[in-house]
Amino acid sequence: MTLKLPGLIDAHVHMRDPGAEYKEDWTSGTAAALTGGFTVVLAMPNTQPPITNDKNLSLALEAGRHKARCDFAQFLGAGPDNAAVIPALSQKAAGMKMYLDQTYGPLRLDDMTLWRDHLSQWPVDAPIAVHAEGRSMAAIILAATFFGRSVHLCHVSTREEILLIKAAKEKGLNVTCEVAPHHLFLSDEDIKHLGVGKSEVRPRLATRADCEALWDNIQVVDCFATDHAPHTLAEKDGLNPPPGFPGLETAFSLLYTAVSQERISVDDLVSRMYTNPRRIFNLPEQQQTWIEIDQKARYEIGSSNFYTRCDWSPFSGWKVVGRITRVVLRGNEAYRDGQVLAPPGYGVNIRY
Amino acid sequence: MTLKLPGLIDAHVHMRDPGAEYKEDWTSGTAAALTGGFTVVLAMPNTQPPITNDKNLSLALEAGRHKARCDFAQFLGAGPDNAAVIPALSQKAAGMKMYLDQTYGPLRLDDMTLWRDHLSQWPVDAPIAVHAEGRSMAAIILAATFFGRSVHLCHVSTREEILLIKAAKEKGLNVTCEVAPHHLFLSDEDIKHLGVGKSEVRPRLATRADCEALWDNIQVVDCFATDHAPHTLAEKDGLNPPPGFPGLETAFSLLYTAVSQERISVDDLVSRMYTNPRRIFNLPEQQQTWIEIDQKARYEIGSSNFYTRCDWSPFSGWKVVGRITRVVLRGNEAYRDGQVLAPPGYGVNIRY
Repeated sequence: MTLKLPGLIDAHVHMRDPGAEYKEDWTSGTAAALTGGFTVVLAMPNTQPPITNDKNLSLALEAGRHKARCDFAQFLGAGPDNAAVIPALSQKAAGMKMYLDQTYGPLRLDDMTLWRDHLSQWPVDAPIAVHAEGRSMAAIILAATFFGRSVHLCHVSTREEILLIKAAKEKGLNVTCEVAPHHLFLSDEDIKHLGVGKSEVRPRLATRADCEALWDNIQVVDCFATDHAPHTLAEKDGLNPPPGFPGLETAFSLLYTAVSQERISVDDLVSRMYTNPRRIFNLPEQQQTWIEIDQKARYEIGSSNFYTRCDWSPFSGWKVVGRITRVVLRGNEAYRDGQVLAPPGYGVNIRY
Repeated sequence: MTLKLPGLIDAHVHMRDPGAEYKEDWTSGTAAALTGGFTVVLAMPNTQPPITNDKNLSLALEAGRHKARCDFAQFLGAGPDNAAVIPALSQKAAGMKMYLDQTYGPLRLDDMTLWRDHLSQWPVDAPIAVHAEGRSMAAIILAATFFGRSVHLCHVSTREEILLIKAAKEKGLNVTCEVAPHHLFLSDEDIKHLGVGKSEVRPRLATRADCEALWDNIQVVDCFATDHAPHTLAEKDGLNPPPGFPGLETAFSLLYTAVSQERISVDDLVSRMYTNPRRIFNLPEQQQTWIEIDQKARYEIGSSNFYTRCDWSPFSGWKVVGRITRVVLRGNEAYRDGQVLAPPGYGVNIRY
């Protein structure tokens, strides 16, 4: 029995390109995206160099133009000294990303007065995505209200965060949010079997109670986004394991399994993986684009042979329901039965 | 030339009574208060035991009733499990104190969902004072707006905090704040000569730029409050120096020196040490109460012979202008020329 859905949108991926192509590049990352049913990915700016100016944005967009197999856009990073400069680039970018808490890469805005500079100057109709945990999340919501603008809160992971967002929405504040599958399906109880290094991720794996609160408040969640953050197994098992999980190839099946268990509906899935991210990030429609799912397929997530160059998954061994069998992107078959068919360069920058 | 001002109000003192009377009690602490020109002190609840319920509130109020030489009220502490209970005590308390960041004592509300419990249940016309630094301060401002109520932000110490409060006030949010003299007059550059242990205070001594930002935005500051937090010199010089400075006996002269230098006006002083704290904490007028100041007196702050039991000051050696010569409290001379005349028990609980 085949289910046909719109091409999925992942509003939060790390392509590692430019600068760390040994763990992922636009070619491998977008192959992983198509395999996972995503026809648009929005790439984060904490690359090497970080995407904080026109020159570096061009680097990323050129790499994407030549290598991406699915459609894409690139976030600009808010830095301590580029608030006045990047608004001119807003039309070319997926949006602006503000890092307010510690994560991977060099971008972070420690002082709240720096937030003000960005919130006041970035165009009010251009998206802002924020890495802000706990109290930082409340702080950026307040700051955004001062400037009468929306913010999209990335990878919500805790009970206090989702209840905060629920309260903010009830008060009519203009906030949206995303949750990553690993924060829905994994908790700190999984660190034991995953291992400490492999479990490293920001925000950290939270408690079982936090996971349950995310599920209990799933109607507050606007988007599912993978926060696909590939690092090699050697790095994850090394002395300073970097935070992040690959997620593009496993997100849909994990979430569709939740559909099969009637934890969420297909409509819940489509709104969070297509309708809402498209609205929030103001993405164009992709003509003649859809994905096909074998709803009855049951399989176990493997431990290798992924398209992502880092070639591992924190979900190895998980039994899931629902397999993507075909992806049609702008009239052409881009993926079928395990084979990525769209060549590098087929993907277009949706903010061209 | 004698200046006559209203009896000063210190909205933030630690009397250490009950539980740590070896460093301060209501007798010694209120002697220090009168010496410093304060005729009302509001005592914080992080005592031993902490003032988090009716029984412990009675302990503190009984001690105050027998020992206090000036008028007083006692804060209740917001704990993780007393949100439903303490509103019934609100009329007997100076207000509720919420500790949202690490400081001295056992009270702290880590999870923002605990804040909600208190903000929703504490009477909207009863004061809430908050220890919240940086992003926590922005978070509690947001949370307070959800419940349409005011919050008083204690010991503002940084540029980002005072600019945050300025922005919040400009947006019409119902926030007030206080600054402690040590954050106006000392910075992290003073740690070297004070010594690391003696310099310990929460919020920490900030940068010179932070101090300057407080002065530059002094019109945003509603109150000067000492955060008088006595610890013995042996403790401060010991292995785990507790945070806090005594401040009651030095605050006025330090601030009056700023008046003499024309950094602030006498009106600025009176509004921040009398009018505003009286309004914010809804304090009754003290009949026939005033203080007299020798405006021309110049003296050097000593290193001992204070009334505070801990008997030291981070301001030893500072040359100041303006000396309190006489305090009249409810028609009786309570202090004159170095001598505290009001006996223990003369002070009344203004929330009796």
